[in-house]
Amino acid sequence: MVIRVAVAGASGYVGGEVLRVFSAHPDVEFGALTAHASAGDTIGAHQPHLVPLASRVIEPTTVEALSGHDVVVLALPHGASGAIAAQLPADVLVLDCGADYRLASADAWAEYYGGEHAGTWPYGMPELVTPNGLQRSLLPGSKRIAVPGCNVTAVTLALQPGIAAGVIDASDVVATLAVGYSGAGKKLAANLLAAEGLGSAVPYAVGGTHRHVPEILQNFASAGAPNPRISFTPVLVPMSRGILASVTAPLAPGADADSVRAAWIDAYADEPFVRVLPEGSWPATASTVGANTALVQVTVDAKAGRVVAVCAIDNLVKGTAGAALQSMNVALGLPETMGLTMMGLAP
Amino acid sequence: MVIRVAVAGASGYVGGEVLRVFSAHPDVEFGALTAHASAGDTIGAHQPHLVPLASRVIEPTTVEALSGHDVVVLALPHGASGAIAAQLPADVLVLDCGADYRLASADAWAEYYGGEHAGTWPYGMPELVTPNGLQRSLLPGSKRIAVPGCNVTAVTLALQPGIAAGVIDASDVVATLAVGYSGAGKKLAANLLAAEGLGSAVPYAVGGTHRHVPEILQNFASAGAPNPRISFTPVLVPMSRGILASVTAPLAPGADADSVRAAWIDAYADEPFVRVLPEGSWPATASTVGANTALVQVTVDAKAGRVVAVCAIDNLVKGTAGAALQSMNVALGLPETMGLTMMGLAP
Amino acid sequence: MVIRVAVAGASGYVGGEVLRVFSAHPDVEFGALTAHASAGDTIGAHQPHLVPLASRVIEPTTVEALSGHDVVVLALPHGASGAIAAQLPADVLVLDCGADYRLASADAWAEYYGGEHAGTWPYGMPELVTPNGLQRSLLPGSKRIAVPGCNVTAVTLALQPGIAAGVIDASDVVATLAVGYSGAGKKLAANLLAAEGLGSAVPYAVGGTHRHVPEILQNFASAGAPNPRISFTPVLVPMSRGILASVTAPLAPGADADSVRAAWIDAYADEPFVRVLPEGSWPATASTVGANTALVQVTVDAKAGRVVAVCAIDNLVKGTAGAALQSMNVALGLPETMGLTMMGLAP
Amino acid sequence: MVIRVAVAGASGYVGGEVLRVFSAHPDVEFGALTAHASAGDTIGAHQPHLVPLASRVIEPTTVEALSGHDVVVLALPHGASGAIAAQLPADVLVLDCGADYRLASADAWAEYYGGEHAGTWPYGMPELVTPNGLQRSLLPGSKRIAVPGCNVTAVTLALQPGIAAGVIDASDVVATLAVGYSGAGKKLAANLLAAEGLGSAVPYAVGGTHRHVPEILQNFASAGAPNPRISFTPVLVPMSRGILASVTAPLAPGADADSVRAAWIDAYADEPFVRVLPEGSWPATASTVGANTALVQVTVDAKAGRVVAVCAIDNLVKGTAGAALQSMNVALGLPETMGLTMMGLAP
Repeated sequence: MVIRVAVAGASGYVGGEVLRVFSAHPDVEFGALTAHASAGDTIGAHQPHLVPLASRVIEPTTVEALSGHDVVVLALPHGASGAIAAQLPADVLVLDCGADYRLASADAWAEYYGGEHAGTWPYGMPELVTPNGLQRSLLPGSKRIAVPGCNVTAVTLALQPGIAAGVIDASDVVATLAVGYSGAGKKLAANLLAAEGLGSAVPYAVGGTHRHVPEILQNFASAGAPNPRISFTPVLVPMSRGILASVTAPLAPGADADSVRAAWIDAYADEPFVRVLPEGSWPATASTVGANTALVQVTVDAKAGRVVAVCAIDNLVKGTAGAALQSMNVALGLPETMGLTMMGLAP
Repeated sequence: MVIRVAVAGASGYVGGEVLRVFSAHPDVEFGALTAHASAGDTIGAHQPHLVPLASRVIEPTTVEALSGHDVVVLALPHGASGAIAAQLPADVLVLDCGADYRLASADAWAEYYGGEHAGTWPYGMPELVTPNGLQRSLLPGSKRIAVPGCNVTAVTLALQPGIAAGVIDASDVVATLAVGYSGAGKKLAANLLAAEGLGSAVPYAVGGTHRHVPEILQNFASAGAPNPRISFTPVLVPMSRGILASVTAPLAPGADADSVRAAWIDAYADEPFVRVLPEGSWPATASTVGANTALVQVTVDAKAGRVVAVCAIDNLVKGTAGAALQSMNVALGLPETMGLTMMGLAP
Repeated sequence: MVIRVAVAGASGYVGGEVLRVFSAHPDVEFGALTAHASAGDTIGAHQPHLVPLASRVIEPTTVEALSGHDVVVLALPHGASGAIAAQLPADVLVLDCGADYRLASADAWAEYYGGEHAGTWPYGMPELVTPNGLQRSLLPGSKRIAVPGCNVTAVTLALQPGIAAGVIDASDVVATLAVGYSGAGKKLAANLLAAEGLGSAVPYAVGGTHRHVPEILQNFASAGAPNPRISFTPVLVPMSRGILASVTAPLAPGADADSVRAAWIDAYADEPFVRVLPEGSWPATASTVGANTALVQVTVDAKAGRVVAVCAIDNLVKGTAGAALQSMNVALGLPETMGLTMMGLAP
Repeated sequence: MVIRVAVAGASGYVGGEVLRVFSAHPDVEFGALTAHASAGDTIGAHQPHLVPLASRVIEPTTVEALSGHDVVVLALPHGASGAIAAQLPADVLVLDCGADYRLASADAWAEYYGGEHAGTWPYGMPELVTPNGLQRSLLPGSKRIAVPGCNVTAVTLALQPGIAAGVIDASDVVATLAVGYSGAGKKLAANLLAAEGLGSAVPYAVGGTHRHVPEILQNFASAGAPNPRISFTPVLVPMSRGILASVTAPLAPGADADSVRAAWIDAYADEPFVRVLPEGSWPATASTVGANTALVQVTVDAKAGRVVAVCAIDNLVKGTAGAALQSMNVALGLPETMGLTMMGLAP
């Protein structure tokens, strides 16, 4: 079986990672690789690490170029996917790595992103708890999938077992994330320069303004939280990849260390890509680099009355391109783990 | 005026920083520089960055070597200060950079550090709010001072204005810290190797087990919190210096963005080393490197019902050696800022 | 076909990378994973990034444990391979990642490593130019292979085209390498701590004392240099992986920019893992992370009278574990690229 | 005595470091702080680490704004100093941190920088060997000083003792530098992004094209080299500050390890800011961070027939702003070390 895949936005960080991750899939064959400003250049000029694709020429991102493929992956800036996606045939599987189709609420879209809401697609997080079982069961046969946000993935996977099991109170979640610089994309901004970032830690979008907040709350609600609230603080730290989400919530009445641990272990016992570490071990982002892995640990701080859960992922793999491939596998009826590694690159 | 200063533990990271920071003080003159395992070596062999002291020979840490100085700075492992301090004359100013004399509660000491509690000394954080005004007023004339813990300093300075003003509820504080590797000292451990730390973020002492927890709660109580509680998570990130503390607490009933902002600005209006940034600016640890500065910002997340405060410091300066010098100045009746810089080293 | 592979030294950095790289080979199946001090522990305790192997138990490194496999990979400290290898059956393919069997000269071994010379095995660098063609042709059917040193690989691949083509003078080579910390292994030493390495660059083994020097000269001689000499300076820089070798040699009489460029392009035109970049592009180590790639560029500095060649590799992949797998493929008559990626992990 | 100092280009990295370094001088008082695009902003908006200057407003860079000071420091892009400098009164001390007035050869300027050569000013490297003694003796009373380039300073200080003593052959120098990102300034370019730089080493301006080459050769000639030549390769490594220059040259006939070592020790015996390390110790850039120090080591590689010298500096201090202040001290007849620290910031 050959799956012909086109990638729009092939010169950016997300696009490059889509190329790297999808190329490891035994059935994937790349068709058009497209971009805007860099159309006409070779992949080698923008993604020098992707040696086997070095001489491929980037085409302009047009509906014509993207036509005639089995799968189209959109790695475009937020707000740019809608116009393209609307013109792609209904029987093509479109995986949108942007935010355009993640939110169910048009109001939330308007508040956090602005502009018109493009719509809502099936959400590409197979592990998500929903009122009707896991999200996994909703994806087979889907032709449109919204790939989750990277921070959203880390926070959701960290906390949802506690929500689903009723052992935490999701109305007062606090999440602080150490995030690597690739999450910001190839944007030319002074605060993203190496001279600024090296040797420094600095927060941004503090106080509830980050665009991933409504998507996290949507997932918490999906997992069963009646009135989810979150204080969300991302902190840029000197690494190119990785998210370390430290997430706490009040321990629910009646819950204790045993019921908490059981909730997390049970929730992920059959998940191929989520691993709850042995008690006492805490995840390092380095352990997930390049892999579609989410490493999770949880403990109860009895004095503080809070559960503390930590999740480490590679923002570009399980946080984006790996999630896209995982969802593609499910959508197409292939084995979910096909072409995806759980071997991280450390040290 | 000449202040003769001896430094015990001169070959470690804290000892080296004490040498660097104190040497900028116009009245300080170093006497004995001592250590255990490295006695007999030169300072240059252990602190190659301290060029003017390169040929100074390290003496063994004994009461004899430390005698005859105006000030003795102890930069020893936790638990090692007591035996030395007990033998130093009462009229010598002893600044302990370790934890031995920070806690008022012998029970807290036993629980978090183990062994016998050495005692309680005046606490070297001039900015701390106490029931009797600022801690600053309690230090003049002191001959024994316990220098605060680095994480403690960052969390305390981040949040105490809200406690003192009654605009937050300190019974459910959550603090997550991005911390640099120098905080762990020159300990030879696999998880502290550069190959492990580069490109990774990893938490430790999660779930209320970190030794700085009781000291933070002690400070919160000092500032007026009736029943302080904290969920505290430190995360090692790839930088050698720096602490970025992201601290949240529920907004108190009746408080709002204006009263919160006013509380922080008023609290630090006259503080020489604590600066509340202009609204919208968030502190980077790089801005504090090498300086005795604490940079603070605060905002209200109305949806989450929480105040979010952030504080950046250099763990070895305002977090340790600078705090020691600042306290020395106050204790000796010198201008508090003497010899201390607020110019950070960036980029 | 199933290739049963045992790995000795499975708890170190090299051993972990052997596990990661070999696990991507479709025919490889792991047998015994052994170590000394960590025998009895799980792989998960020492290699938390290798999730699929997490529960595998490490056996003691003994001949018995290593018996009964098709391939044994030795990832042991220099000098430790000989005793083990001597006892392994002659029909087992042994890949030694250590230095024990790399050098042809017992005198060079004695001078640079000390102790008795274990012997000389076929050298696992298929791309090496030898008097009888490429080294590739000497490996099929080999049962003992010495995997090259990481720095050696970078310097050799950078310069050998010029030697073989006679366009440079290898009697005055100067090589300076920016190297990542994983090259030093999990050794507990103060100069390898993250606090020391972050934000710093520092040379070591300067002045011709590095153990890789005789192996480099051996390769230069193999490629045709009558009297090779090298000034070799490795510089530790703040990255966990990667080697960037900057290598210069005098331009040979009669050679010029065109003949130099042609020499490099011709030499590597058919090499699957070595890529000469388009003119004007210079390799970054990030482009090779996790991949078995060597990225090379060369130019002529006419004023200085020197050729400057640069080679970037991942020290743990093309520099060690990838070279081992590549050699295994050639030795066993499999396609040379089987199971090896040329997709680096960037950014 | 009060020295009124104006700084042009106060919002960039060099300008910021000039503010930091000069503010430690007991006699310096800042007058106008100017810039182009950021005129009207506060210093705090661009240099958040310079807390005491946070509220100072940046003026437009005009001759009027810069008038009326004792000293004007120009921290402008190359080529921009000439127009301003020409209009400043002859009795004002002007320190140009740019390249405009460093080169004696108009041809070299035209070849490496392009455009018209502004002229040649006394060179602000007091330690430079000249045919008439040290450069130090030529600076007192100067009203125009060209501050040396950062890479130039590292390479010159590394090698000039050997040139002056005749123990090396400067006609075949090879220098490879590990350099931090601040050297590139606040330029918004994709290759300078943190996501690209973290975890990577990459060369640039390879093959003799770097603009610092003619300035280095000029210094080598000044120190006595009849026909200096250099192969110069800078390598960006993941640190914000620092230059580690590894420099080799053939050992001169008749010279040996003793005469080489003696040459370096004698040359710098009386230099306040250059320290030759004890034999066997090699400098780390971390030891020089924030200090006006150059740490130097040298050895002879007898087999390679080459001397290897290494010099570590902070590119923004001894490489730029510290050199400017040091030259100001000499020019004004003040103690050369006034206001300058030799205490680096490590770890």
